[in-house]
Amino acid sequence: MDKILRIDMGAAGGPKLTEEPVGEYAGLGGRAMTSSIVAKEVPPTCHPLSEDNKLVIAPGILSGSAAAMSGRISVGCKSPLTGGIKESNSGGQGAQVLARLGYAAIVLEGKPADDNLYKVFINKDGAQITVDNSLKMLGNYAVVDKMKAEYGDKIATISIGQAGEMKLANSSVAFSDMELRPTRHAGRGGVGSVMGSKRVKVIVLDDSGLSNRKPAEAEKFKAANKEFVAGLRKHPVTGEGLPAYGTNVLTNVINEAGAYPTRNFSKGQFEGAAKISGETMAETENARGGEGSATHGCHRGCVIRCSGTYYDKDGNYLTKQPEYETVWAHGGNCGIDDLDAIAMMDRLEDDFGLDTIEMGATLAVAMEAGVAEFGDAQAAIDLVKQVGEGTPLGRILGSGAAVAGKVFGIERVPVVKGQAMPAYDPRAVQGIGVTYATTTMGADHTAGYAVATNILGVGGSVDPLKPEGQVELSRNLQISTAAIDSSGMCLFIAFAILDQAETFQALVDMLGAFTGTAMTADDVMALGKKVLEIERDFNKRAGFTAKDDRLPGYFYREKLAPHNVTFGVSDEELDQVFNW
Amino acid sequence: MDKILRIDMGAAGGPKLTEEPVGEYAGLGGRAMTSSIVAKEVPPTCHPLSEDNKLVIAPGILSGSAAAMSGRISVGCKSPLTGGIKESNSGGQGAQVLARLGYAAIVLEGKPADDNLYKVFINKDGAQITVDNSLKMLGNYAVVDKMKAEYGDKIATISIGQAGEMKLANSSVAFSDMELRPTRHAGRGGVGSVMGSKRVKVIVLDDSGLSNRKPAEAEKFKAANKEFVAGLRKHPVTGEGLPAYGTNVLTNVINEAGAYPTRNFSKGQFEGAAKISGETMAETENARGGEGSATHGCHRGCVIRCSGTYYDKDGNYLTKQPEYETVWAHGGNCGIDDLDAIAMMDRLEDDFGLDTIEMGATLAVAMEAGVAEFGDAQAAIDLVKQVGEGTPLGRILGSGAAVAGKVFGIERVPVVKGQAMPAYDPRAVQGIGVTYATTTMGADHTAGYAVATNILGVGGSVDPLKPEGQVELSRNLQISTAAIDSSGMCLFIAFAILDQAETFQALVDMLGAFTGTAMTADDVMALGKKVLEIERDFNKRAGFTAKDDRLPGYFYREKLAPHNVTFGVSDEELDQVFNW
Repeated sequence: MDKILRIDMGAAGGPKLTEEPVGEYAGLGGRAMTSSIVAKEVPPTCHPLSEDNKLVIAPGILSGSAAAMSGRISVGCKSPLTGGIKESNSGGQGAQVLARLGYAAIVLEGKPADDNLYKVFINKDGAQITVDNSLKMLGNYAVVDKMKAEYGDKIATISIGQAGEMKLANSSVAFSDMELRPTRHAGRGGVGSVMGSKRVKVIVLDDSGLSNRKPAEAEKFKAANKEFVAGLRKHPVTGEGLPAYGTNVLTNVINEAGAYPTRNFSKGQFEGAAKISGETMAETENARGGEGSATHGCHRGCVIRCSGTYYDKDGNYLTKQPEYETVWAHGGNCGIDDLDAIAMMDRLEDDFGLDTIEMGATLAVAMEAGVAEFGDAQAAIDLVKQVGEGTPLGRILGSGAAVAGKVFGIERVPVVKGQAMPAYDPRAVQGIGVTYATTTMGADHTAGYAVATNILGVGGSVDPLKPEGQVELSRNLQISTAAIDSSGMCLFIAFAILDQAETFQALVDMLGAFTGTAMTADDVMALGKKVLEIERDFNKRAGFTAKDDRLPGYFYREKLAPHNVTFGVSDEELDQVFNW
Repeated sequence: MDKILRIDMGAAGGPKLTEEPVGEYAGLGGRAMTSSIVAKEVPPTCHPLSEDNKLVIAPGILSGSAAAMSGRISVGCKSPLTGGIKESNSGGQGAQVLARLGYAAIVLEGKPADDNLYKVFINKDGAQITVDNSLKMLGNYAVVDKMKAEYGDKIATISIGQAGEMKLANSSVAFSDMELRPTRHAGRGGVGSVMGSKRVKVIVLDDSGLSNRKPAEAEKFKAANKEFVAGLRKHPVTGEGLPAYGTNVLTNVINEAGAYPTRNFSKGQFEGAAKISGETMAETENARGGEGSATHGCHRGCVIRCSGTYYDKDGNYLTKQPEYETVWAHGGNCGIDDLDAIAMMDRLEDDFGLDTIEMGATLAVAMEAGVAEFGDAQAAIDLVKQVGEGTPLGRILGSGAAVAGKVFGIERVPVVKGQAMPAYDPRAVQGIGVTYATTTMGADHTAGYAVATNILGVGGSVDPLKPEGQVELSRNLQISTAAIDSSGMCLFIAFAILDQAETFQALVDMLGAFTGTAMTADDVMALGKKVLEIERDFNKRAGFTAKDDRLPGYFYREKLAPHNVTFGVSDEELDQVFNW
């Protein structure tokens, strides 16, 4: 990982590939890398679809090594959805393979003058870019199939579907998983539309002939990794809950906590939750084809194994096991209690290249506007199909909840900085409300997952219904998350490292041993703070102010059943999150 | 004008009308009144369609008096289009009649819980509000016809069409003209959608039995008014150009200056300009029915008389004579050179209640996205019809150029603060570019019409193609405009008062004599500054920063033919506009 591949799509005479030493960005990875490059090289007030924006794809610091859980990759740019800096994080094989190929980052820059569509192929011999207009308006599944036919099945892919080509603000960048399916997405913030504006349809990676990246101190690294894995296995969330049911283990938990946003955030409990819970999903899967509810990892080196496969009624592969947030977005939030319908939408959205959280939130806003009835699963599926077809209605919905709310004249739109809230109502999980409001990313649960401490009892305990202690909780989580997102580690390791000091120390030791530096816990937190400061500064230069660090007005006014709470963290407190 | 009518649409048990003394807002009118009330009473970060927003309708300080040209009215709120404070100014009869009825302002506040639609009737006996669901989804013309049938033809109306009811961000508030047609609009900024969110369809005004408001010093007032009128008659623009051809006299002028934004601001000259010019329009009108190209005023007391009537090929009334900006928006900006088609769109948009500038700019953005071909007049008409029907595509287009650009993934969207630029390219009229960038209103030529000095040689002369002198020019014009917009005077008086010191003095004297105060020119400018400061402060509290006072990036990068210029006023200079 000592080089950066730059692809200037706007170069005279066609795209120009340049490999350059990592230089001033040396030692960075993942979110630290993408945010550093974007903050330094992208004018903060530029149009997100303009030649001035850049799409940066960067594996984490430990990606491509033997470190367990190190297969996360970051996609960064100025976001078409939020107008601010964006780091969208994905699993899948991309991180491991790109890192083994030696690239600390791929940077797509400029913008072609013509309408050609391009594919990039990278292997041990370097990178090539070619026009391939046969890929135009293909879904991610078809793109991957074509690439497999062309380059064999030892590849990993990074691609966009129709949504990205149409430059819809809710489009994702898809990463293939271990089964070479495009099921893992840098979903949030519309990063796919920036890739679409660069006219790059797919990046094919082949690391044949290359081996893992080597740690500076092999023995120390190996020992730390072993300790780290043991810690993950021993924690109830990473060792039991997630492997058993995947992330959808949360449906019953969050619903019982009264924090499950139902029918466009109008209530905190969904009467149909049990029918779409992880437990029911596992039963359903066990009754159908394939491996049933058995789970596996989304990338090489995963030991948590929260992924699964969803088969349809006839036992045919339909999609990956939908994540909790996906199930919620199309389930309770749309009043839908039909797992097969939800899985169908998951499949369609993976194929079109759409963020499932934003898409489900947008469907619910459309339902509130009367475009369809809450609970009408077939209508919801048809609406998602329209996005892929690019009909006017589809384009509205593919532009995200904020735009849909504006077009339909709806006031109750659950967004912060233009990005839809995920599956936790901020009134009943006030810590996550602080994260939604203040993170540089727009409403994003992964930026500081206070649900862990508010609801799951991980990392201590803070009453979810009260404002007290939430700012400190969110602050600490945002800092550690920014560091984890830079390491290449899956965020789910946080459950274990929050509760088990020795597991956190093992991570610190692993980073130190890999890079050959004397790293301390303070260094890790300092990295997290540095990343947040860079991002905050970009957003400030883009015109963001404290007024953008707020929830929509109705969360302060409308009480959420069953707890009948409003969001209680004051503006003054919110403004203290980044005051360290 | 010593009382304010407040209508609380959200009161328990139904709308509640309260008449209160003008109190702390005494002495204010027009824009000074609307901006003061909005700034004081509306939370700057509220959702524009929420119960917290207020719609304020206020005649000017001199409205309802015998002062010539005093029939302008202001509509203020937090704008659904820009997210900032909005004062949208209209002609028509509303100002004179409302002022004679004694109201300094009508304030619509709160939001009804149910779906009823209301009408308000105000005469010398006071105000009443009643449910009238028979008005649902009627166009402005049908609404006015119904009100005429119900209340007679001595009324003036303030109404919204389908667009306002649908809460589209580009919806206007329509004011009836002297012929009792809904042709005068507070067009910009989506004020109609705020009226729609309050569920008030129409306000009917009847000033029967009431007379003009009386000046404090009658003789002095009469003399000043006489001098003022003489000044307007003697100036070539207000005495000759506007009465002869209406505002469309500008088409040839601006086109020849190379500042006529053509096909979505891609060029500065339109080959079909002559076919849609004011001169051609007059010829066309003279060959058809009615009064031909003879002009008249849009309100009682107008002496400039720039309004006209447009008849179709069969000699039947089609619409008012379309304004220059309307002709441009649907003409050169869409590559259309067909006056009848343009007039048809003007009619449709008046009926649906849409701002013609925003609508035409949005059509051009849609054309750039390939929704229709540039120059296809029938396609453009069909698209406008879809807005009235509320189809998904119509809703996109009715949400304004910024939203349409986002939905269609288009980078070249000519907006500032979410509002579309009018009919002057800021690269070839750099003074108006400064106004577009910095006014509190979003791109708006009327906020500081530097075209006068850059192109028309009024108020001195500043080279339109160079950045030098533009900031000072725009600053002075923005200040004087804010004052004029508060006086109730038509902005067109500016041509005369900029060039003729004695006409400006006559205005000052008229204000002084009417209010019975010793008013100086400095007092008038101080009022303008005060209004701008109030508005800037609101926007700052809403989260606006200097980054919002910029043109879109491509105006700094893409050269405009035929002069091959980019916008040259630096950010640092722009930030000096409000530094006085």
